[in-house]
Amino acid sequence: MKLRHTLVPTLRNDPSDAETNSHRFLIRAGLIRSLASGVYSYLPLGLRVLRNIERIVREEMEKAGAVEVLLPSLHPAELWQESGRWDLYGDELMRLKDRHGRSFALGATHEEAITALVRDEVKSYKKLPLTLFQIQTKFRDERRPRYGLLRGREFVMKDAYSFDATPEGLDRSYAVMYEAYSAIFRRCGLTFRSVEADSGSIGGTDTHEFMALADIGEDTIVHCESCGYAANIELAESAGRAADADLPEPGLAAALTDAASATMPGQPQTADTPDVRTITQLTRFLGVEAREIIKSLALLADGRPYVVLVRGDRELNETKVKRLLGASVVEMMSEADIAGLLGSVPGFIGPVDLDPKVGIVADEEVRGMPTAVVGANAVDRHLTGVVPERHFPVGRYGDLRMASPGDACKRCGEPLQFAKGIEVGHVFKLGTKYSEALRATFLDEHGRSLPYIMGCYGIGVSRLLSAIVEQHHDEAGIVWPAAVAPYGVHLIVIQTKDAAQAELAERLYRELRNAGCEVLLDDRDERPGAKFADADLLGLPLRVTIGKRAADGIVECKPRSAAEPFELEADKLPGYAAALTGH
Amino acid sequence: MKLRHTLVPTLRNDPSDAETNSHRFLIRAGLIRSLASGVYSYLPLGLRVLRNIERIVREEMEKAGAVEVLLPSLHPAELWQESGRWDLYGDELMRLKDRHGRSFALGATHEEAITALVRDEVKSYKKLPLTLFQIQTKFRDERRPRYGLLRGREFVMKDAYSFDATPEGLDRSYAVMYEAYSAIFRRCGLTFRSVEADSGSIGGTDTHEFMALADIGEDTIVHCESCGYAANIELAESAGRAADADLPEPGLAAALTDAASATMPGQPQTADTPDVRTITQLTRFLGVEAREIIKSLALLADGRPYVVLVRGDRELNETKVKRLLGASVVEMMSEADIAGLLGSVPGFIGPVDLDPKVGIVADEEVRGMPTAVVGANAVDRHLTGVVPERHFPVGRYGDLRMASPGDACKRCGEPLQFAKGIEVGHVFKLGTKYSEALRATFLDEHGRSLPYIMGCYGIGVSRLLSAIVEQHHDEAGIVWPAAVAPYGVHLIVIQTKDAAQAELAERLYRELRNAGCEVLLDDRDERPGAKFADADLLGLPLRVTIGKRAADGIVECKPRSAAEPFELEADKLPGYAAALTGH
Repeated sequence: MKLRHTLVPTLRNDPSDAETNSHRFLIRAGLIRSLASGVYSYLPLGLRVLRNIERIVREEMEKAGAVEVLLPSLHPAELWQESGRWDLYGDELMRLKDRHGRSFALGATHEEAITALVRDEVKSYKKLPLTLFQIQTKFRDERRPRYGLLRGREFVMKDAYSFDATPEGLDRSYAVMYEAYSAIFRRCGLTFRSVEADSGSIGGTDTHEFMALADIGEDTIVHCESCGYAANIELAESAGRAADADLPEPGLAAALTDAASATMPGQPQTADTPDVRTITQLTRFLGVEAREIIKSLALLADGRPYVVLVRGDRELNETKVKRLLGASVVEMMSEADIAGLLGSVPGFIGPVDLDPKVGIVADEEVRGMPTAVVGANAVDRHLTGVVPERHFPVGRYGDLRMASPGDACKRCGEPLQFAKGIEVGHVFKLGTKYSEALRATFLDEHGRSLPYIMGCYGIGVSRLLSAIVEQHHDEAGIVWPAAVAPYGVHLIVIQTKDAAQAELAERLYRELRNAGCEVLLDDRDERPGAKFADADLLGLPLRVTIGKRAADGIVECKPRSAAEPFELEADKLPGYAAALTGH
Repeated sequence: MKLRHTLVPTLRNDPSDAETNSHRFLIRAGLIRSLASGVYSYLPLGLRVLRNIERIVREEMEKAGAVEVLLPSLHPAELWQESGRWDLYGDELMRLKDRHGRSFALGATHEEAITALVRDEVKSYKKLPLTLFQIQTKFRDERRPRYGLLRGREFVMKDAYSFDATPEGLDRSYAVMYEAYSAIFRRCGLTFRSVEADSGSIGGTDTHEFMALADIGEDTIVHCESCGYAANIELAESAGRAADADLPEPGLAAALTDAASATMPGQPQTADTPDVRTITQLTRFLGVEAREIIKSLALLADGRPYVVLVRGDRELNETKVKRLLGASVVEMMSEADIAGLLGSVPGFIGPVDLDPKVGIVADEEVRGMPTAVVGANAVDRHLTGVVPERHFPVGRYGDLRMASPGDACKRCGEPLQFAKGIEVGHVFKLGTKYSEALRATFLDEHGRSLPYIMGCYGIGVSRLLSAIVEQHHDEAGIVWPAAVAPYGVHLIVIQTKDAAQAELAERLYRELRNAGCEVLLDDRDERPGAKFADADLLGLPLRVTIGKRAADGIVECKPRSAAEPFELEADKLPGYAAALTGH
């Protein structure tokens, strides 16, 4: 393609709303433009990258035996009502009415549509297993679209759905998809990790997220380099801190208790803690360590009141609370509920002498605390010398804390690592959730009617553009991996009016394409500096400059990732370029 | 692909709602399924055909120098308000609000979105001409979705938009697209005609529709085999009928006038015509020919009252009326308006003695009528012996009639032909309609700011599936042209448990694919009769049957379009199949 004949509107300056490298470079290199918040047009170069990614996804899906279909975006409301998600999905589901007043959803995901299709068209176990996939536009009305293609409202997704007769079949389908996903992200040039993830209220047994490592990632992943354990922080387990292995220092909390026990043995003492509401304030005020304090959090789990306890140096992990309690919705109590349901005040909540109707659950680390400081359920008061299970009951223990730097791996004891990641893929064992809701059944070999056992598998195709750029850029612009680059070679002519240069450019343009290379020829009347800057910004794998030595048949080559250019005989260029760009 | 591993749910019987051959075969062959009225899922074979068509479209667009982009479906309402189409487009435009209450349209077409993009990104004549295209999903809330993919509410379209600096540039861009369209439809195996079409209220100079000939087509096209003239009936001109070349018979109308003129020379006579409201009734009642009567139609053109006259043997062409009057909206008058504005009654409207505020326009054929019968603007009364321009004024003459069988070509005088067509493509000179509305300008070589001169070019990509099947089928099923067939070869194994057959099938499956053929292997445990019936229904170009003579290395070949099968040595199959299917 010649640059004059296509639309690559590069920008010198960063757009004001771009907070991430991928966002600013995708805009500046002229790959995408925003039409509305979270809604993008793909310009020619952006579309080429998107198609390259789609091709990789399609090839790996087909290699895995999945069959491509294309489902619509307009879904009748009745379909989502059958699964119950018309109400549950909330504001993210975009809805409209047709001219006859019938309600439709714009497909945010296609479990309902695909389950209805397979229900109507597949009746026998003989057709199973069956995995269908599509590469299709999705609509989700994100509350806060941002980071360009990373979190949009209209985006391209690959979604696949497997249908099996048995749980073992699902395990096999899942494993095949898991491998295909790994191959896809490898081919896209991504550094990624697959991590155990939360299955939410669906309660499937297995679910993994594929995370592209990136500092701007909205997810935190926890992994162990020693044994390979990796999980989303929502789910990550840890064995506690190396520091905890030391015997607990008696500390001031114990000392206070001892002092108090002189008059009233083993009983908590009330401490005046005026306006001391945070753990940090408390450590300073009482001279204790954070891990000698119990943090008490007041929650409603599906509407029922709980006080949840974690050690003062820990953060609560709400996902783990949800899973322990089997709750769909967990939310922090309002100040009014804290007063009404607990008879307490924010900042001074504690587990002692609560109404028995309030459930108390505690992180496992709380179990081992000899004594602790807790809130006294009264303004400006804490209790010291409190012993778990002696001074308050614990309904259930569990792992309820966020893993954090310094924690050891629960499996092998080595230190855990923490990283930020962009979720680029998700594989999920759905089981029979949708097949039961939509009564999608098949006949097994004994003639019994059984619900399909399903899995679903998603890849954020357009999000991958951002993830790849986030990992592959430098200060000057994008550094595309060859497999997804919009073109392989960026051919620059220094003086378009110089006959020798123009002739050699045309010849190489032709020869490179005959050698299987995709070539972008910068034939504009621009200063060489502007052309080089654009080449760096666009980030094609190989820059070839045709300049003064054109008459001698010499060109200058510079792989985008190399520091320095080198000269090459023009005759050798097609072979070199084809090898470098993988053609 | 092996049939066991994909989803091809063929049906023995016609679906009850399928009125056309393409609709019933696309459903029965398992290519598509409906999710809602006018909303379809593409199953694996249907998607393969769609992709083949897309590939042909893309190749020809790129050959024509157009550059591919991908614009979103969610369009902010403001964009459509700028062009004025938010209000004008009516119920066909699907609309929704996002979570913040902002209004969006679902893209029914992309003139606004592309004009806004080019306005923001292209500033100079140096970047022109520029033609951008996309293959993308469109949403239109058709009042009556029908005929499967022919008239849907969510469908795939290729839309292209050209941007030029001069009218001559637009002519060139238009001509290039016109040629590309012809190439596309030829490659899709279609019998088609390009016809002059109505440009509607936009008033562009040139617009052509590409019509695939088919009896179920919703458009009528008029063409001359002698000189090549072809137009949509909305626009088609004709030179009048061969019968009109005879001298007009005096007829009863003239006789009546002569009789009347004995008492009152040259004055119309009132005739009692009780309950005679139609032309047919009138010819019988008065014993005149239809072409001796003037049909008077009462219309509102942009709200102004008109009586429009055509000869009694003609039908009015509303599109031509719109064009003659330069009106945006032409509608028939209500009974109340006929009484109030004309002082007349339905069935007895005539041009004599009307209020001068009512415009009278007449078809050219009315000009030459010596005398005529017309309505008397009174119940059960007509006037005879009426002479145009003597007894009533005519504001303007024009071609206002529908061309009809028997008419001669205006250009060469030969008889016109009439056919039904499916509109599969449309090329259109937009001019500056959208660039002016959206203030999309460029700087010319003198630094003047000028609006882009635009063209737009559409192809109904998913509709092409239907059009192709409509032209390529027989009683047993589809007969795909090789270029778009989902697979080239349909390989049938008679006895899957026969080792020789199974082995040969596997070998040929492999060898055919190595030869570049796409193969569908029917490896199901079905009766041979069912397999043959499905092969005819699916309509792949070549059926190859592996049966009893497998052990001798002999297979049976039957091109789908041939009447009889023939035997072939298996070794020769790959070469034969590759040649037949174009690989």
